Amino acid sequence: MKTGNRKLQEEKVFKDPVHRYIHVRDELIWDLIGTKEFQRLRRIRQLGTTFLTFHGAEHTRFNHSLGVYEIMRRIIEVFEGKPYWQHEERLLCLSAALLHDIGHGPFSHSFEKVFQTDHEWWTRKIITGDTEVHHVLTRMGKDFPQKVADVIEKTYPNKLVVSMISSQIDADRMDYLQRDAFYTGVSYGHFDMERILRVMRPREDQVVIKNTGMHAVEDYIMSRYQMYWQVYFHPVTRSAEVILSKILQRVKHLQASGYSFKQPPLHFQGFFDKKLSLDDYLQLDESVTLFYFQMWQKEDDATLSDLCQRFMNRHLFKYVEFDQHFVMNEWLKLQELFRKAGMDPEYYLVIDSSSDLPYDFYRPGEEDEERMPIHLLTPDKKLRELSRESDIVEAISGKKRTDHKLYYPKEWLDTPGYENEKQQIKDILQVHDGKTDTKQ
Amino acid sequence: MKTGNRKLQEEKVFKDPVHRYIHVRDELIWDLIGTKEFQRLRRIRQLGTTFLTFHGAEHTRFNHSLGVYEIMRRIIEVFEGKPYWQHEERLLCLSAALLHDIGHGPFSHSFEKVFQTDHEWWTRKIITGDTEVHHVLTRMGKDFPQKVADVIEKTYPNKLVVSMISSQIDADRMDYLQRDAFYTGVSYGHFDMERILRVMRPREDQVVIKNTGMHAVEDYIMSRYQMYWQVYFHPVTRSAEVILSKILQRVKHLQASGYSFKQPPLHFQGFFDKKLSLDDYLQLDESVTLFYFQMWQKEDDATLSDLCQRFMNRHLFKYVEFDQHFVMNEWLKLQELFRKAGMDPEYYLVIDSSSDLPYDFYRPGEEDEERMPIHLLTPDKKLRELSRESDIVEAISGKKRTDHKLYYPKEWLDTPGYENEKQQIKDILQVHDGKTDTKQ
Amino acid sequence: MKTGNRKLQEEKVFKDPVHRYIHVRDELIWDLIGTKEFQRLRRIRQLGTTFLTFHGAEHTRFNHSLGVYEIMRRIIEVFEGKPYWQHEERLLCLSAALLHDIGHGPFSHSFEKVFQTDHEWWTRKIITGDTEVHHVLTRMGKDFPQKVADVIEKTYPNKLVVSMISSQIDADRMDYLQRDAFYTGVSYGHFDMERILRVMRPREDQVVIKNTGMHAVEDYIMSRYQMYWQVYFHPVTRSAEVILSKILQRVKHLQASGYSFKQPPLHFQGFFDKKLSLDDYLQLDESVTLFYFQMWQKEDDATLSDLCQRFMNRHLFKYVEFDQHFVMNEWLKLQELFRKAGMDPEYYLVIDSSSDLPYDFYRPGEEDEERMPIHLLTPDKKLRELSRESDIVEAISGKKRTDHKLYYPKEWLDTPGYENEKQQIKDILQVHDGKTDTKQ
Amino acid sequence: MKTGNRKLQEEKVFKDPVHRYIHVRDELIWDLIGTKEFQRLRRIRQLGTTFLTFHGAEHTRFNHSLGVYEIMRRIIEVFEGKPYWQHEERLLCLSAALLHDIGHGPFSHSFEKVFQTDHEWWTRKIITGDTEVHHVLTRMGKDFPQKVADVIEKTYPNKLVVSMISSQIDADRMDYLQRDAFYTGVSYGHFDMERILRVMRPREDQVVIKNTGMHAVEDYIMSRYQMYWQVYFHPVTRSAEVILSKILQRVKHLQASGYSFKQPPLHFQGFFDKKLSLDDYLQLDESVTLFYFQMWQKEDDATLSDLCQRFMNRHLFKYVEFDQHFVMNEWLKLQELFRKAGMDPEYYLVIDSSSDLPYDFYRPGEEDEERMPIHLLTPDKKLRELSRESDIVEAISGKKRTDHKLYYPKEWLDTPGYENEKQQIKDILQVHDGKTDTKQ
Repeated sequence: MKTGNRKLQEEKVFKDPVHRYIHVRDELIWDLIGTKEFQRLRRIRQLGTTFLTFHGAEHTRFNHSLGVYEIMRRIIEVFEGKPYWQHEERLLCLSAALLHDIGHGPFSHSFEKVFQTDHEWWTRKIITGDTEVHHVLTRMGKDFPQKVADVIEKTYPNKLVVSMISSQIDADRMDYLQRDAFYTGVSYGHFDMERILRVMRPREDQVVIKNTGMHAVEDYIMSRYQMYWQVYFHPVTRSAEVILSKILQRVKHLQASGYSFKQPPLHFQGFFDKKLSLDDYLQLDESVTLFYFQMWQKEDDATLSDLCQRFMNRHLFKYVEFDQHFVMNEWLKLQELFRKAGMDPEYYLVIDSSSDLPYDFYRPGEEDEERMPIHLLTPDKKLRELSRESDIVEAISGKKRTDHKLYYPKEWLDTPGYENEKQQIKDILQVHDGKTDTKQ
Repeated sequence: MKTGNRKLQEEKVFKDPVHRYIHVRDELIWDLIGTKEFQRLRRIRQLGTTFLTFHGAEHTRFNHSLGVYEIMRRIIEVFEGKPYWQHEERLLCLSAALLHDIGHGPFSHSFEKVFQTDHEWWTRKIITGDTEVHHVLTRMGKDFPQKVADVIEKTYPNKLVVSMISSQIDADRMDYLQRDAFYTGVSYGHFDMERILRVMRPREDQVVIKNTGMHAVEDYIMSRYQMYWQVYFHPVTRSAEVILSKILQRVKHLQASGYSFKQPPLHFQGFFDKKLSLDDYLQLDESVTLFYFQMWQKEDDATLSDLCQRFMNRHLFKYVEFDQHFVMNEWLKLQELFRKAGMDPEYYLVIDSSSDLPYDFYRPGEEDEERMPIHLLTPDKKLRELSRESDIVEAISGKKRTDHKLYYPKEWLDTPGYENEKQQIKDILQVHDGKTDTKQ
Repeated sequence: MKTGNRKLQEEKVFKDPVHRYIHVRDELIWDLIGTKEFQRLRRIRQLGTTFLTFHGAEHTRFNHSLGVYEIMRRIIEVFEGKPYWQHEERLLCLSAALLHDIGHGPFSHSFEKVFQTDHEWWTRKIITGDTEVHHVLTRMGKDFPQKVADVIEKTYPNKLVVSMISSQIDADRMDYLQRDAFYTGVSYGHFDMERILRVMRPREDQVVIKNTGMHAVEDYIMSRYQMYWQVYFHPVTRSAEVILSKILQRVKHLQASGYSFKQPPLHFQGFFDKKLSLDDYLQLDESVTLFYFQMWQKEDDATLSDLCQRFMNRHLFKYVEFDQHFVMNEWLKLQELFRKAGMDPEYYLVIDSSSDLPYDFYRPGEEDEERMPIHLLTPDKKLRELSRESDIVEAISGKKRTDHKLYYPKEWLDTPGYENEKQQIKDILQVHDGKTDTKQ
Repeated sequence: MKTGNRKLQEEKVFKDPVHRYIHVRDELIWDLIGTKEFQRLRRIRQLGTTFLTFHGAEHTRFNHSLGVYEIMRRIIEVFEGKPYWQHEERLLCLSAALLHDIGHGPFSHSFEKVFQTDHEWWTRKIITGDTEVHHVLTRMGKDFPQKVADVIEKTYPNKLVVSMISSQIDADRMDYLQRDAFYTGVSYGHFDMERILRVMRPREDQVVIKNTGMHAVEDYIMSRYQMYWQVYFHPVTRSAEVILSKILQRVKHLQASGYSFKQPPLHFQGFFDKKLSLDDYLQLDESVTLFYFQMWQKEDDATLSDLCQRFMNRHLFKYVEFDQHFVMNEWLKLQELFRKAGMDPEYYLVIDSSSDLPYDFYRPGEEDEERMPIHLLTPDKKLRELSRESDIVEAISGKKRTDHKLYYPKEWLDTPGYENEKQQIKDILQVHDGKTDTKQ
């Protein structure tokens, strides 16, 4: 029945700037990479709008997915022959690693927020629906696609397998930290992955780390911490996200209110009707999205046109901190002044919170935590949770640090008209400018 | 009159993975980067279809243009105060470096071939026409935009300035070699730029290199040579180029023949009419191009639809060498067999020659050479052409190496129908498969 | 009077694997490097016995001293023209950076412990005494050598200058962290020095860091923390240090007790007599030390001969933790058993404490702290101590972590003779083996 | 019989800055590393006097030997299971790789020239004589040590095995190129070893390279070429070698002529008597040599004392080219003038030829060539010699480039006394100064 686990006649190799080479020996993996659903990931950037902050970060999810696969392959090389590891789950692990992001759309974060969609749901659909990916996977057996989806959704019974791709130290994170650091050019994000791979050990329900590798893991956690604040939550990136979300929100509003588009949002129609087909979803990539944004620069609706021009030409919003110093009547006053001066606060005065973002560093004690914490394995085979062993990890893991920022079109305040209102706006905002406590 | 050479209040810095940081101190440069024409370069990949061969090579011309600017800035730092260098040309050099690729469109090479357009012509238009770039440049004086265009077109009287951006060892090449090597992940392409910068010297009509730096220059030339064959002329990249060109050719043909498109090629209309406006040209980026390719997958025209699917899903053509072993009647026979089997050889049997490509390594002696050769400066202030001093450079510079490949849809030969013709095709092609002499 | 601040006709450059190039433009610096006292640093390894743990760490203090000079040069480049910085102190800073380790002898740490000498005292002597270094320095004025010595001893009135070489983030530390990481090959020790240099600012009495650079500084502190535990305090390195100290102690004892050496310790005589001349001291390098160790392998005294063989052939001691679990009567019992079994516990049962070592990470609050803490500079020109701003730094700075280890010749316990005593020794030691809490 | 091929209970790992980790799984290898003869390599620098030119190059043969072992281990990983490769020769290959330099003494090149000794002869003695190395090796069988020696001497019947350590592209060279580049800090010396390892294939009598890897091999050959001229033949290094050789020559002369040394050359006595024992040889390391040089600075013989001071304090000789422009009577005249001015030309006017040095780049066609040329393996399993396939390799491989330099104490020419003779000397030398043709 299983015809899927054939080897390629000759190993295929991808040159990868992060892992040097990505090695493919299994026909199954090779054919998954060749599917159109996987090739589509070439048209979806890994870090969304981050390229507007770090110009080097133009890499795609295709890039990252291959990297996660490669790390998984190396983890398995270490695991083969060790207790708890079952060789039969090798291709399952590799497939899940390769496909874990297959459901992502363009600028997922904004689309999901505005259209209440969910890339994980689409991942399941792509793996289990009528797709090239699905057809390749079924070569391994009829239930194989479902298993792959289960691993990615963390419902697969063998939690060891789940933890290899979704835990606090998994193939996914180890790739993206290194890859995002490489492409952005920041000097954080580096850690000794080779060392970590050598000290990873399979256990009944999770991957654990030999305690001789604790310092390498500390370094990895520190990298995450730094990448989190230096890259993933960068305020300029968030400014672009804000504008992007507001474009989508405006389009949704215009559509609902019967506005007549020069370039109707055909590719988005399914979102409005709540009946987006899998096929429609798969057509929606960043090229298509940017095509619309480009066209909408010429729409009659001034808000849509302005926001699209801002996004395309990188005329982003500036920000002030929106923290406990901000009193409620200041906030209400600001909104009123924006309205008076002819600027809709719904679109031009936007609060963004870092805690909305999908990245996290190490937070072992939180209720909403889905990923298992890291456990160290002592020579006498006992397990200890990392933050109990490491001062550094403990220091940073206890703290949830949300930051809120208020985004607005600063350059507008210096244009003619409504000078009085604009001066009042400036006065309020100035108080909060630079009031950033780096530590709260 | 000149209000353009103001300094920024505080230096701006871009994090760059290749040069670590890109430093901007001039308001002029900062404002040029902010123009929409320059921001548009974010939507045009540096290496066209190369990302289909080297998945890391997703970087854009925006990325590269900043890099060329930064190298130019460093060269000028070395030159300041030295004979022949005129400080007044500093901003001219920096602007030309930043803008040298501003006229590039998406997949320039294919577009230029099919539509007889020319990115250099568009560069001049963008710099001297009614654009944001132009308006920023005129702050330096009315004739400044023209000067910038002249430097880029190599017609500027001060040939020293021209050679800083267009010679055999200039800011442009030093950036793209390193950058393309970085993003593709190949181990070639590295050379000691810091050393080269230290030994560059201005002379009356060109940049020369102190002869103590000859070995660093040899290494640079070798990097070019390796990148040339390993990356720029990679046969898989060329396969994608072939398909891309054939898509454009088909669209042009269909349009001419009155075919009724589901998604009419509006953005390409100007090319057909030979009256593309600057505004139209600036709208044409890779997102737009890919949007059309995506839509055209569903056109009724089977050729267009097939070629677009091939490009989007990376179902590329395979190739055999098309060299002196290929006899004329084999070639005619092949075309006939393709036709008989229902496959139009115009689109599915394509010869591609590496010598058509825009990259070259060091060729001091060729008639069509536009870039000045490299000269070494001896301690007694004499100049010697590099290939006369270096065995290695001489060895590789004398040889023009064109290679021709014949691209075709190999997998089609194993589909049902016309088995007889397909077998004959296979027989002919097989003879030429792998007959590659690595040296001719 | 000052003839010292002449520029070299042409800049001299050293190729350096850590900083790429070390640039020398001042004749004074060039001539200091050429002195025999400075050249002598080529014969003294930077990390003492660490090469027995990390075989790559064979680099010398010569290497490091050039690196500190180069970083200082770059800091000054940033400082020139800024408030508080006085250009006249440039050569003073550079000289102090270059010479700060000039007084180091071979394996300083052990020599200083056994012979109650002090490399800082010798530094002052070399700078102010009758040496080539002194003669070069006096070209800058009669009082210049004394000033250089004062800066190194931290008694110089301008504390800004002192802090550039001796603070929590100075040229010395920034070099050794990177250099030691480079040569050992560990993946820690890297931080973004270029960024830190860009945000360093001179103030009245210290170097401060613009708070926009806080994350780079956090990364630097983390590097120190990791290097501290992973490299500088590595238990194998300390085992070699223990043996080295015991060799010196034994020689001192034998000399005092009238033992007749085959190879008398001529070069050490001054230490015994407490009247070591500057000239004698300068002759004592690692080659000389290793020459004696080599010869002493053949001495009649079994202890000296054995210890020297152990050091030369890397037959080091093993260790167990010597912590609060170790009860006093175990300790006394162990000593007794060693004696009974014919092994002198004075030389073969040695406690070593990490807190004796000269390295520290960030400890702002300690009484014995000599180095100023790091201050961040806010946009409104206020200063804040780093650990009050950074969760991570606070987390690790508060804790003094001393660890004690008990070193002994483990392989001896498996040799014939005194099996009963040896078994008892094993029993006691086994209890403490691997009882390492990674966190206490 | 064979008790040697036991595995270690747990893999041992060395942190290596070049290969990241060196992995040891065989007890035999572990125990060989622990022998005193192998530990002695820690006291012999890999690149002799090169550290006086490139201060980073302080690494030892210990360092390099581990690296060669590691590369051999990786080659074998690729070879396992492939035709022609015999698994039984694994430990033989690894042992030979580890021990190939075991016979090296301090500054081998100079010692061998002056004392007509030969490190290869000592290698055989150490492996087959009464040493710790020998005793460990015999665990694999009585004839095993001899086999190891045969492999190193290239007399072993299986030429495949020989070529893995001694050919134009072997474990030895691949390590030293990378390692020497790493420690000197030059930007040459890098090539894609991982790629080369992947395309290495065993054949009946040699290692060959799949022709798909040709460009990686070209890059490797270019690295060799650059390292050869930039590092190994660096004129400053050779100046130090000249002085070193002259010290040894002077000591030999003084000893022969009955000079009474303050510090008699005890460790060198065996060389003079031509009866150096293995034990004596093993004591002679760089520490011992430098100890003598240090002591001899105070000898009464002015020549010996001066030369030793020059070496210790890096007061090296300068040079002019000694090429075809140098006419015989100039040369005789120079010698005469030196003598007249009281400077013995035997020691102070020295010709050094690069062709005397032990390094070579690729020279397939030369009669004295001992190492097999590189062969490429085509898809149809034919072999082709590299220089016939590669333009670049052909370009550089045909040419033997000897360069001769004349070394002399330049600063002496500006001291008082014999001004007339010194002026004549200057006049002659000046003609040849800087007359360097970079290409001949």
